[in-house]
Amino acid sequence: MSCSFGNNLKITIFGQSHSEKIGVVIDRLPAGIKIDTVRIAAFLERRAPGRSGLSTRRNEDDAFEIVSGLYNGFTCGAPLCAYTANKDTRSEDYESLAAAPRPSHSDYPAGVKYNGFNDIRGGGNFSGRMTAPLCFAGAVCIQLLESMGVFVGAHISSIGEVFDMSLDPVNVNPECLRLIAEKTLPVVDDECIELMADAITEVKAQGDSLGGTVECAVVGLKPGVGEPMFDGLENRISATVFAIPGVKGIEFGSGFDGTLRKGSQNNDPYCYNNGVVKTSTNNAGGILGGLSTGMPVIFRCAFKPTPSIAAEQCTVNTETGEEVKISVPGRHDPCIVPRAVPCVEAAAAIAVADFLIKG
Amino acid sequence: MSCSFGNNLKITIFGQSHSEKIGVVIDRLPAGIKIDTVRIAAFLERRAPGRSGLSTRRNEDDAFEIVSGLYNGFTCGAPLCAYTANKDTRSEDYESLAAAPRPSHSDYPAGVKYNGFNDIRGGGNFSGRMTAPLCFAGAVCIQLLESMGVFVGAHISSIGEVFDMSLDPVNVNPECLRLIAEKTLPVVDDECIELMADAITEVKAQGDSLGGTVECAVVGLKPGVGEPMFDGLENRISATVFAIPGVKGIEFGSGFDGTLRKGSQNNDPYCYNNGVVKTSTNNAGGILGGLSTGMPVIFRCAFKPTPSIAAEQCTVNTETGEEVKISVPGRHDPCIVPRAVPCVEAAAAIAVADFLIKG
Amino acid sequence: MSCSFGNNLKITIFGQSHSEKIGVVIDRLPAGIKIDTVRIAAFLERRAPGRSGLSTRRNEDDAFEIVSGLYNGFTCGAPLCAYTANKDTRSEDYESLAAAPRPSHSDYPAGVKYNGFNDIRGGGNFSGRMTAPLCFAGAVCIQLLESMGVFVGAHISSIGEVFDMSLDPVNVNPECLRLIAEKTLPVVDDECIELMADAITEVKAQGDSLGGTVECAVVGLKPGVGEPMFDGLENRISATVFAIPGVKGIEFGSGFDGTLRKGSQNNDPYCYNNGVVKTSTNNAGGILGGLSTGMPVIFRCAFKPTPSIAAEQCTVNTETGEEVKISVPGRHDPCIVPRAVPCVEAAAAIAVADFLIKG
Amino acid sequence: MSCSFGNNLKITIFGQSHSEKIGVVIDRLPAGIKIDTVRIAAFLERRAPGRSGLSTRRNEDDAFEIVSGLYNGFTCGAPLCAYTANKDTRSEDYESLAAAPRPSHSDYPAGVKYNGFNDIRGGGNFSGRMTAPLCFAGAVCIQLLESMGVFVGAHISSIGEVFDMSLDPVNVNPECLRLIAEKTLPVVDDECIELMADAITEVKAQGDSLGGTVECAVVGLKPGVGEPMFDGLENRISATVFAIPGVKGIEFGSGFDGTLRKGSQNNDPYCYNNGVVKTSTNNAGGILGGLSTGMPVIFRCAFKPTPSIAAEQCTVNTETGEEVKISVPGRHDPCIVPRAVPCVEAAAAIAVADFLIKG
Repeated sequence: MSCSFGNNLKITIFGQSHSEKIGVVIDRLPAGIKIDTVRIAAFLERRAPGRSGLSTRRNEDDAFEIVSGLYNGFTCGAPLCAYTANKDTRSEDYESLAAAPRPSHSDYPAGVKYNGFNDIRGGGNFSGRMTAPLCFAGAVCIQLLESMGVFVGAHISSIGEVFDMSLDPVNVNPECLRLIAEKTLPVVDDECIELMADAITEVKAQGDSLGGTVECAVVGLKPGVGEPMFDGLENRISATVFAIPGVKGIEFGSGFDGTLRKGSQNNDPYCYNNGVVKTSTNNAGGILGGLSTGMPVIFRCAFKPTPSIAAEQCTVNTETGEEVKISVPGRHDPCIVPRAVPCVEAAAAIAVADFLIKG
Repeated sequence: MSCSFGNNLKITIFGQSHSEKIGVVIDRLPAGIKIDTVRIAAFLERRAPGRSGLSTRRNEDDAFEIVSGLYNGFTCGAPLCAYTANKDTRSEDYESLAAAPRPSHSDYPAGVKYNGFNDIRGGGNFSGRMTAPLCFAGAVCIQLLESMGVFVGAHISSIGEVFDMSLDPVNVNPECLRLIAEKTLPVVDDECIELMADAITEVKAQGDSLGGTVECAVVGLKPGVGEPMFDGLENRISATVFAIPGVKGIEFGSGFDGTLRKGSQNNDPYCYNNGVVKTSTNNAGGILGGLSTGMPVIFRCAFKPTPSIAAEQCTVNTETGEEVKISVPGRHDPCIVPRAVPCVEAAAAIAVADFLIKG
Repeated sequence: MSCSFGNNLKITIFGQSHSEKIGVVIDRLPAGIKIDTVRIAAFLERRAPGRSGLSTRRNEDDAFEIVSGLYNGFTCGAPLCAYTANKDTRSEDYESLAAAPRPSHSDYPAGVKYNGFNDIRGGGNFSGRMTAPLCFAGAVCIQLLESMGVFVGAHISSIGEVFDMSLDPVNVNPECLRLIAEKTLPVVDDECIELMADAITEVKAQGDSLGGTVECAVVGLKPGVGEPMFDGLENRISATVFAIPGVKGIEFGSGFDGTLRKGSQNNDPYCYNNGVVKTSTNNAGGILGGLSTGMPVIFRCAFKPTPSIAAEQCTVNTETGEEVKISVPGRHDPCIVPRAVPCVEAAAAIAVADFLIKG
Repeated sequence: MSCSFGNNLKITIFGQSHSEKIGVVIDRLPAGIKIDTVRIAAFLERRAPGRSGLSTRRNEDDAFEIVSGLYNGFTCGAPLCAYTANKDTRSEDYESLAAAPRPSHSDYPAGVKYNGFNDIRGGGNFSGRMTAPLCFAGAVCIQLLESMGVFVGAHISSIGEVFDMSLDPVNVNPECLRLIAEKTLPVVDDECIELMADAITEVKAQGDSLGGTVECAVVGLKPGVGEPMFDGLENRISATVFAIPGVKGIEFGSGFDGTLRKGSQNNDPYCYNNGVVKTSTNNAGGILGGLSTGMPVIFRCAFKPTPSIAAEQCTVNTETGEEVKISVPGRHDPCIVPRAVPCVEAAAAIAVADFLIKG
């Protein structure tokens, strides 16, 4: 598998940070879905860098071209392939790093795995750049899901020590997700925006970086979506979310906090609401036994602070064992969390769409 | 997929809580591995209930019988099938619950998914009972891994608000994992044992339940194990760990805590140690870019408090919408965390073995 | 994969010719299918040996026990596991053959593949005995297909040089398939029965063996079942049919004969029949572009003559290179084709059901 | 799956006959393989049309561009993507055919499957044009196989009623395969060349078409390659060969002819040859129990006569039921068999490489 995902859909992402093209093939999309390329572009724009002083200055051209799978604007049953070019790559930034791997990047284990044949430039296949085709695939899946009444949205839950309010796990709805997506920084509580921006600006000035968390909701899922054991919603959402570079944790519903509660506090009582079975709380994050309960699916994921920092760090020459001091050049985000929000939405949409597309 | 796992190994678990048998088929095990059934039984014993006042009194007979795939005590290349009988089942405990689903159990979404044909008895295919064949498969994988110099061990990281010390992420080794496994409760710091036991006893007396966390280490992995994107170590370990009922979160290395740090604090500097590239800290939890770094793989997972509690709870009759008060009868663990420790080890071993077995 | 099959269904067969049990796990069966175990037994009886002087005298007990996946007689969404015991095995028949592999059996390549750890007894995992669980799975799939209006049936198309008439590729229907299945030997033209029986009796007396062909029809498929390229009906039916030991060829519709025709002779003109699009001939065997056309799916497969023969044959001691003369002891079918008919039906049913079960 | 293949390799083909691009992504290629693009182009040239009066005049530009997965000319562990443009497409040729499907083309079942959203132009995703990316993938796999000492080659076994000699199943070797590939028409016996060309010229003049067979050999495989049951060499080679449009049958070794023989005639005695276990005949086609025996793997596949013919044929308007007479315009091969030879080699190479690449 590796760069492919899906039991029903088959999504394969290709490319490296500095390859000629990066893109994605989506096989087994149902035929007859109208694809709105303007909305896809708008979604990718949320991930694109260079919008403010808060992100990398690399000028990524995320204009994806769809080269197969569409006929008269609708999916036609054939695999949909889309790609974009890698431009404004500065490969020379990386070449000196081959022997002395950057701390907390994939350079070292990738070099071992591929016997030194891996494309070291910009992290190669492990680069955050690969989230562009992930987002393309997610944008397609989001359109597919919306045609089924399912909506996906996320917000910055925290950046460093600045915390946003949580989504309301019982009442979150498509409209509030849409409003969040339109903000300068996608948060619930507008008051965090400036605090978060300040934190990023400050750490950037230090040549350092910040991590954070993203909270995501999938609303509109009927009960019973998911499979038992290895293919529950949690398993499958984890499989796509951990594909985003920098994710180091995920929790559903009350998650780790729930471990501090008693059963009587964490259980979600059932109730009846306009003819529909609901729960009055949603500590389950909308998932029981790997299956959707009909309540919003809620999860949070943890992004480590960007490992590329200007500050001097210790590494070793992996061939000689000699200690080396490095500072990571290149143009990097001091905090990837703002740009990661659509990536998390994309990952969730892909995982969920895979269940709803029937073989 | 659902009850099957593996890109290289193919593990399929079958059974329901009250079916005649529960078991597992492990396809694509390499031929020529000596299987030590005494060690398997000892591993399953760690999961078995009824060992103390702390767990369910259901008398599960976990004596698995291997009925295929072995020849003269060695794997022979054919799928290994093993199963055990379900005994001491009290199906009548469950039948009254069909219409009024137990809060925070899979009853309701499973009933919707399977149009009411699901086996409601004891949670059916979603029961914690299904971790017995998971542990069997894990025990086989653990033997396979040990033959390759890879060791897996876990401990109770917390029960409710009682916290154990963490494993040393840099120096944890097979010997310390072995010592932990031999304790009454598998913890690092012996002083927690009594505190944890007391907490469980107390909550049991209240007819309530506790959750907790389990921390697991995989030591001995060479650098470069894993695949990019969707098949990284994090993705694959999550896929097996979320197969354990009650898991609601997972984090690797510094995980959610790491999101509060700066890059300069969270990055792991490389160093050279006896001719081997190491890191002096291990906030990455032994994984970068989805690939093992050569340092111990470390993760923690969150178990929600057992949803089966004696205290009265609100639910609804899903057909009439009528409110119903229920108390969950049956024999349940007030805290599943102690018995979950070998399950987490098994899940980790399966995920890792799947990478090391070559197609 | 190997012993597992299915993109939507997941069927895993376990066991060896002389293991304690042989069986199958069928995962992802839809919930709510009533399973008629009497019909399954009747189907397995068609495969069972010892019914006449024409087949092996090994007394196989094919009474499969279903140990999971059923609840009140209906599938419940959990994997269905069924197995039977291996009895009347005479392992000593085989042990002398380890060093000197039987010609045209899997002994030699299996020994190399598994480094000598393979279960040599009776061909181990490669034995024709493994078609018993295949037939069990097929019998379940046949019930599933019939609930969707799809019927599968096959006949002996030839034994040695005795040929049966072909099925009518345009008009074959469930009723004629049912009648064929009830005959002493399943053929279209009753006059072949005695000729075929005589041919088998004669070759048996010579200590030799015969091959033959089986023709199979799947009727009732709506147009458009199948997937493009690697997952067309031909690809998937081949994947299951070649799982039957002894199959060396398969052809759909006019198959190899069709290569001798011109396009104007082999093309199937469309016509309209009671409001349904049909073709007036069916040289396509009901499949175009890998997709069903709505006409009967028709294929033939070739079974090599049973390799186990009493006549003396040359082999070598694979360790010393020394020439060895052997005669294959044991109780073998001089011609497996009669018993292979339900196996081919089972294989076809599994392949087709996998398409019709939606993930 | 559908347009994806592979248990270890993951090959995904995208495009339609008239989409902007057609191409392929090959995931999980081992890193460090030198890719010789000149040899790939030469291989694709063997499939390209317009070389003589014998094939379609559509001017296909098969110059594939590799846009990811290579670094300094070597595979780098990231998915390799390559594509080419579709040029010289005359979409207007097809539009009149939407309502009245061409006999023995996929038009009708594809229209039903995709609810009329399929790309009807040139057969869309079902077009023979899709064998260009299949051949690209095959050309890469052939280089991979050659680095392991495994060679693949095929010849035209028959066109209509003109038959070539068979490959020598015991002694076929890389050199003789190479010589065949260099001929005007790839045959064993040069005397067929003119006869075959004449047959094609004649049928073309009649506005009709011919079918034929291709025989393929894979030499150099060590014994024991393959998996039992559903993933034997026969199953997997069938899965790729039936992906080539027009294939209606496949047989291995003595195949259908073998069903006319007795066991004593069809069995392959073992012998010892320079320290290697061989068989003195090779009726098994190099495969027993789904596993390679170490002898050449030999198979033949049947291509139906091209369904596109100028002669008038009957079809129906699928909406009104009205009878329609059509003649298929466009530029078509009167016999695809010559161009199919590299396609069969590619299919075989992909299937075999998938086994030899270890997860």
